[in-house]
Amino acid sequence: MERDPCVFCKIAAEALPAYVVYRDGDFVAFLDSHPLFPGHVLLAPRKHYETVTDLPLHLAGPAMGLIQVLAKAVEAAVDAEGTFIAINNHVSQTVPHLHIHVVPRRRRDGLKGFFWPRQNYTDDDAREAVRDAIEREVQKLLV
Amino acid sequence: MERDPCVFCKIAAEALPAYVVYRDGDFVAFLDSHPLFPGHVLLAPRKHYETVTDLPLHLAGPAMGLIQVLAKAVEAAVDAEGTFIAINNHVSQTVPHLHIHVVPRRRRDGLKGFFWPRQNYTDDDAREAVRDAIEREVQKLLV
Repeated sequence: MERDPCVFCKIAAEALPAYVVYRDGDFVAFLDSHPLFPGHVLLAPRKHYETVTDLPLHLAGPAMGLIQVLAKAVEAAVDAEGTFIAINNHVSQTVPHLHIHVVPRRRRDGLKGFFWPRQNYTDDDAREAVRDAIEREVQKLLV
Repeated sequence: MERDPCVFCKIAAEALPAYVVYRDGDFVAFLDSHPLFPGHVLLAPRKHYETVTDLPLHLAGPAMGLIQVLAKAVEAAVDAEGTFIAINNHVSQTVPHLHIHVVPRRRRDGLKGFFWPRQNYTDDDAREAVRDAIEREVQKLLV
C-alpha cells in the first residue's frame, strides 16, 4: 500500500483543489488556507523536498526569482506597504514539504515578527565562539 | 557633503566591525547584533539594494544558495533542530538594505512565529477575488 502523499504534493499534482496563483513545471504558488492576512501565498516546489536545504541547486535561482515576482504581485494585488518572506525548516513547519511564505504587510498590522523576546549573548567571548563555529561550518560546506 | 552610508554598507565595506561568518565578492553574512537566539545570522548583498525585489537577477541564485549554506551551518554550529529564514521588505525592516535572517530554532524555544493572530477571508468569494488579483499581477510581471 502506497503511503498517502503529502497535502502540498497533492496540490502540486492537482489532486487537491487550492487557490493557485501561479504554476510552472517546477513550482506552484497558492493562497495559504489559514492566512496571516488575506493575500498570504505559499510558494512550493512541485517535487517533495522537505526543507530549503533539500532544494536542488538548479531550483535555487528560480525559487528566488519567484519570491521576487510573488512579493511584487502580492503587494500590488492587496495594496500592501511591504511583504514578509518566511521559511520554517523543521521547527514550526506544519507541512514537511518546503513552502515559502509571502505575506503582505502594512504598518501597525499587528504582526509581532520583531517583538519576540530576544535572547542575547552573555558576552563578546560567547558571541565570538558562535561566530567562529558558524564560519567553520560554512567552510566545511564550501569545500 | 556625501550622505552617510547605511550600516550594512559599512559592514560590507569593512568600515564597521561585525562578527562576520562569510564574505565573498557579492555577499556578506554576520551575526545579528540583537539576535532572536545566539547564532542568528544576517545575509546581505554588499551593494545597497533596499528589498528582496531590488536584488538583480544574477544574484538571485547565489542568494538562495547562500541561504542553504547558512541554514545548514547555523543549525550545525549551535546544534539546533531547525531554522527560520525571514526577510522583511519595507514594513518591520529596521535597516533599509536587504538582509535575510537565518535563525536557529529548537522546539518550544518560545518563538511566536506561528501563534500570530490570523485574519481569514470573510468567505470564498473574497478568497477568490484575492487569488485572481494576485494571479493577474503575476502575469503582468512575467510578460
